[in-house]
Amino acid sequence: MKAAKTDLLNCIERIQPFVHKTPVLSSRLIDKYVGAEIFFKCENFQRGGAYKMRGATNAILQLTEKQRKKGVVTHSSGNFAQAVSLGAQSLGVVAHIVMPSSAPEVKKIGVKEYDGIIYECEPTLEARQITADRIAKETGATFLHPSNDPNVIIGQGTAAMELFEVQPDLNAIFCPVGGGGLIAGSALVANYFGNDCLVYGGEPFEADDAYRSLKSGKIEGNETTITIADGLKTTLGDNNFPIIKDHVKDIVRVTEEEIIAAMRMIWERMKIIVEPSSAVALAALIRDKNNFQNQKVGIIISGGNVDLQNLPF
Amino acid sequence: MKAAKTDLLNCIERIQPFVHKTPVLSSRLIDKYVGAEIFFKCENFQRGGAYKMRGATNAILQLTEKQRKKGVVTHSSGNFAQAVSLGAQSLGVVAHIVMPSSAPEVKKIGVKEYDGIIYECEPTLEARQITADRIAKETGATFLHPSNDPNVIIGQGTAAMELFEVQPDLNAIFCPVGGGGLIAGSALVANYFGNDCLVYGGEPFEADDAYRSLKSGKIEGNETTITIADGLKTTLGDNNFPIIKDHVKDIVRVTEEEIIAAMRMIWERMKIIVEPSSAVALAALIRDKNNFQNQKVGIIISGGNVDLQNLPF
Repeated sequence: MKAAKTDLLNCIERIQPFVHKTPVLSSRLIDKYVGAEIFFKCENFQRGGAYKMRGATNAILQLTEKQRKKGVVTHSSGNFAQAVSLGAQSLGVVAHIVMPSSAPEVKKIGVKEYDGIIYECEPTLEARQITADRIAKETGATFLHPSNDPNVIIGQGTAAMELFEVQPDLNAIFCPVGGGGLIAGSALVANYFGNDCLVYGGEPFEADDAYRSLKSGKIEGNETTITIADGLKTTLGDNNFPIIKDHVKDIVRVTEEEIIAAMRMIWERMKIIVEPSSAVALAALIRDKNNFQNQKVGIIISGGNVDLQNLPF
Repeated sequence: MKAAKTDLLNCIERIQPFVHKTPVLSSRLIDKYVGAEIFFKCENFQRGGAYKMRGATNAILQLTEKQRKKGVVTHSSGNFAQAVSLGAQSLGVVAHIVMPSSAPEVKKIGVKEYDGIIYECEPTLEARQITADRIAKETGATFLHPSNDPNVIIGQGTAAMELFEVQPDLNAIFCPVGGGGLIAGSALVANYFGNDCLVYGGEPFEADDAYRSLKSGKIEGNETTITIADGLKTTLGDNNFPIIKDHVKDIVRVTEEEIIAAMRMIWERMKIIVEPSSAVALAALIRDKNNFQNQKVGIIISGGNVDLQNLPF
């Protein structure tokens, strides 16, 4: 895919009426611990509880009237499912949502509250795609890929655009990496709007497809996905991988213990609720902190949809 | 005690360099559920994790140089302990902190991090006062009462002052009621700065001394204190009770289940961490919501110091 600077500028204007401009928060105690000045872009406060609302809204807004009448279909373990449901609801569009049976209960409830129609499937990427394709065929709904759709990738980048508005001279941005939409969008934005700002990904050792893909130069699957970071189990796509190859400096892998410790640090120190996938970005910065002493580092807090009945503490 | 409008204006100016101006947040989903427009003054984001920093700082700042050299002593189940430790640390003053042995571990750790010297005692109000009196006598430290000291009461009121800055035409403010410092300070502020704004307290049925004190017209003790709202187990004092009698409209009691449900609602919907004592104010509004339809209601979120290893979910 190609994306010009104007595509990003047009996108942020297009979605603005439908998404929150989320706050950028800091913590003196975490800054002291890491040795850097950290700016947390808090997409846990986004509508639907995650940045996914940005990409979903951008994609739906670009459908024709005829397409909108036939609805949209997607597959997602949770946050994109909620985002498409909420975005579609706001625009009077029907949303068909394929969710793996293993998706957190709180995310299924969110989808239902936003009038999304849920179709459960086996918890494999293959089953998700087959089910979504079938529904698209049966209903005529447009398929929206949660992380590889160009309009979704551009939409996800707007979180980093707002972060640069607040802090134009960031040295680095850390994002969690799941399907790659957020980091690809953020990397495009850093390239156009940053001032030599480097983009890094955080990824669980237990789902390190992006790390291995960058090493091998081609898209690799996950060998395991036994991670608490339930949003990061998917793999890269052919639209976002070239952007990641060109514009992402490095992917830092973290252990499950490091994810939980970072999550706990954010909850206790910042008094905000972030999901495990979000904590992966801070965990990656902490693991690599010696390289960021006295730097200004942005972290995209991707979401806050946590199942309170199933916490790791 | 007497407090003029200028006392409050002087106080907010005095403490400003040492405390955060915390955000005022809203939730469309909670507004819809309650049927009112709610403004949450988020003192969980205050330094030390609670509004107590305001009163503690105001009290320490008004000590003489000679008094500051001898230190301060207080007793507290947690948040005031942390606040006095942090406030004293900022001003180079020694803080002696008497804590009941039942205080949450996270609050003890907080006190230690801020260089407070902890003295554990039996978990009764009597043992707390006796221990604090002994330390004051031995060290010459000035005793600061967590909720009945006039300078503390005035300091706590500054949270409501900032809330009125954001939303001058509130119809009502709900506060949790423990020792009575926060609600007395807020009631003074509503009286001077509100536009016919009524002040309500929220209190657990399991520690309903303020409710019964208002009914009987004299300070009553607690009959039980078996509540999850660990900050609300103390009783009213002779300085704050007269203010409460004159300026608080009503105290609404809530069950433990209602407290936990309100806490969960705030965590899930707003993605912020609030302690059970804070959730009592929202629980009280929800119980009494029919009287507040379409009104503008402020809620003081008193703090966010929660023991993550001991959650009610």
